[in-house]
Amino acid sequence: MKVATARRLVAEFLGSALLAALVIGSGIAAQRLSPTDTGLQLLENAIATALGLPVLILIFSPISGAHFNPIVSLVDSAIGMRAWRDTAIYIPTQVVGCISGAMLANLMFGDAAISMSSTDRLTPGHFLAEIVASAGLILVIFALARTGRAAVTPAAVGAYIGAAYFFTSSSSFANPAITVGRMFSDSFAGIAPASAPGFIAAQLVGGGLGFVLVRWLYPRTA
Amino acid sequence: MKVATARRLVAEFLGSALLAALVIGSGIAAQRLSPTDTGLQLLENAIATALGLPVLILIFSPISGAHFNPIVSLVDSAIGMRAWRDTAIYIPTQVVGCISGAMLANLMFGDAAISMSSTDRLTPGHFLAEIVASAGLILVIFALARTGRAAVTPAAVGAYIGAAYFFTSSSSFANPAITVGRMFSDSFAGIAPASAPGFIAAQLVGGGLGFVLVRWLYPRTA
Amino acid sequence: MKVATARRLVAEFLGSALLAALVIGSGIAAQRLSPTDTGLQLLENAIATALGLPVLILIFSPISGAHFNPIVSLVDSAIGMRAWRDTAIYIPTQVVGCISGAMLANLMFGDAAISMSSTDRLTPGHFLAEIVASAGLILVIFALARTGRAAVTPAAVGAYIGAAYFFTSSSSFANPAITVGRMFSDSFAGIAPASAPGFIAAQLVGGGLGFVLVRWLYPRTA
Amino acid sequence: MKVATARRLVAEFLGSALLAALVIGSGIAAQRLSPTDTGLQLLENAIATALGLPVLILIFSPISGAHFNPIVSLVDSAIGMRAWRDTAIYIPTQVVGCISGAMLANLMFGDAAISMSSTDRLTPGHFLAEIVASAGLILVIFALARTGRAAVTPAAVGAYIGAAYFFTSSSSFANPAITVGRMFSDSFAGIAPASAPGFIAAQLVGGGLGFVLVRWLYPRTA
Repeated sequence: MKVATARRLVAEFLGSALLAALVIGSGIAAQRLSPTDTGLQLLENAIATALGLPVLILIFSPISGAHFNPIVSLVDSAIGMRAWRDTAIYIPTQVVGCISGAMLANLMFGDAAISMSSTDRLTPGHFLAEIVASAGLILVIFALARTGRAAVTPAAVGAYIGAAYFFTSSSSFANPAITVGRMFSDSFAGIAPASAPGFIAAQLVGGGLGFVLVRWLYPRTA
Repeated sequence: MKVATARRLVAEFLGSALLAALVIGSGIAAQRLSPTDTGLQLLENAIATALGLPVLILIFSPISGAHFNPIVSLVDSAIGMRAWRDTAIYIPTQVVGCISGAMLANLMFGDAAISMSSTDRLTPGHFLAEIVASAGLILVIFALARTGRAAVTPAAVGAYIGAAYFFTSSSSFANPAITVGRMFSDSFAGIAPASAPGFIAAQLVGGGLGFVLVRWLYPRTA
Repeated sequence: MKVATARRLVAEFLGSALLAALVIGSGIAAQRLSPTDTGLQLLENAIATALGLPVLILIFSPISGAHFNPIVSLVDSAIGMRAWRDTAIYIPTQVVGCISGAMLANLMFGDAAISMSSTDRLTPGHFLAEIVASAGLILVIFALARTGRAAVTPAAVGAYIGAAYFFTSSSSFANPAITVGRMFSDSFAGIAPASAPGFIAAQLVGGGLGFVLVRWLYPRTA
Repeated sequence: MKVATARRLVAEFLGSALLAALVIGSGIAAQRLSPTDTGLQLLENAIATALGLPVLILIFSPISGAHFNPIVSLVDSAIGMRAWRDTAIYIPTQVVGCISGAMLANLMFGDAAISMSSTDRLTPGHFLAEIVASAGLILVIFALARTGRAAVTPAAVGAYIGAAYFFTSSSSFANPAITVGRMFSDSFAGIAPASAPGFIAAQLVGGGLGFVLVRWLYPRTA
């Protein structure tokens, strides 16, 4: 393994871990500090994510592309912008990163490193919401990439996810690696293992839908 | 119909639908999750919109211009930047898009696809507010377009609408297509059909006022 | 009077009026919609202002410079960037604009066009706060102007005022024209006439302090 | 001492003082105005900081680099971007600045200039959190500096700290000078003197970890 690849995998690992720590940590803080209003908890969680996610993308994008998300890596390869071999090693790195980040969040807030979430989330509405959230995420990332505006991608992705926490009923996981990571924290941002496969399936469907839209709407790279 | 036109209409349809889903979906979430404070509901709704709307403009502006709003299309043609023929097909696309987005929001949150709103909104103060909100929206979009600063338009429009949710008493619809779409969700962001014509009339007056101001303040395109 | 000057005065009038409507209107909305938590009211007021003020600067800066504020105009002339004659006509325009905007806000929210505020605000801490707030405002505007970074001024000024609503005890008026305008709305954002002269005096002291700092810290225009 | 050095020290002093006034002042306001929900207090504190900190960096970075933080200065010298002699005089300036800013905040809010904080904060989770927060801060600053993207540093640092208020359990001090300053305000943002050494130790460990990561991930300056 060349140093360059090691650096990319470490970047993707650290970014995924910090993303999970961001999402789950701010969820734990919100739940503890604002116990009486779930909307206020989600607002705190959404604002922290909208602020922090762009920073993580800024830090790691020059090294690994800063995907932190298997559906982004899959579409990146499907669309011809990254070797499938890369995606094959990115995905497990993202999953392990997100699990590590969940543990980090739990430890920072004085909990056991691992606690399984008991939050059931899978309903037809949430399944539909994850399709919409994932398709939209693919659209924003690749619309900007294919029109020469990647410089605004960090801010746009953060803003998109912050908005999607509210406009989708599922609070927009839109990321299979984060979905796995969130299983390991019994807190505001957690998801019960039984709900995870349905979420991941919806995310893959949404990613595919996004891929089709990107291909048709942005036929060539600018 | 050329492919290019189909692509533009699909972009305008998808953007309008996602805008309605954003505005109405975050309104439903806010109402359910923060039941005791209407200001907090509006804050959640406003922040989600201020974050999400710029992303929708970023995604679709290279294809259709990302109007999602009949008064924007009308002024665009009146000012000579777009053929009237385009506006004639944009407007019904925007309206159908916004209705579709309302249905999508309802479904994501587990409601019936269509429920008519019962929220009466039409007062003299709200009529005045929609004139101000619409004139301001036209001013920001075309001031930037006519001074060579269109790159900041997505963020500026999102920020403007987010602010206008609070500084206008009507929570700033400022868009006839969204006004129609919001009739079809009996939720926080809805509007009773009887109030819609008055809102749309005020938006047209405000759009005309904005057009006059833009023409006089920015006499030539930079 | 040349057309150019008329256009600049209309821009300064409209911008000042919309700024007052933004600050006071969002204050009225916040007070009505979030009656139980003053901090939440101020947060809504601050976020609306931080989002809306940059848009007003973007709209009007190519025409008038978008001061909306006598201390900004005074420093602009003192530092040699604008004729004193301009400032002499800008200041009354800003004051009349802010009073008009207060009336607009009152009318949008269904109140009488004019109601005198009864909110006493003048304490030694608030006097100190207005000095700090005004000096900081001058610093950010002229530091950016003198180092070739005026493109970020709209966002920076909005962010500064949004932050200053919270970190100064006076909620950072930092503007004599807005101070006069806020006298005419008996609402969250109002100020009793008896407190206004002290606020304006502190703003002038802060503006002078900011001017001295700018001159010494940024000795030449970049 | 040359004028240039005096100017840099004044910039670093003023920036550190205003940073402390921002963090502590908005903390006092939040605590007083939102007495019933600690999460809402932290949200107000975080949004004020995320808005205000970038403005302070914009104002002072052309003069002093706008560190306001000993671990940033230490890494700046360790990485070879600034003389150790500079860092040796920056650090006491930052500490004195932050103490002065705490006094300014206390006075603006009508408190005694100095009151010692009684808020115990040191737990193993908070120690871990300060390591993570500080390492992340170093990563974002130097990743951007070493890849030619310093223009986005002000916004990125503000966003990072705003997010870290929520995703770390310690509310992310990440700055030894601010840690000292916060000892002198018995308010929401304060820290008991007995907790300060542990916080500072964790910040130094995190700064060192960040330095190692930056060196390995961004091997050469772009």
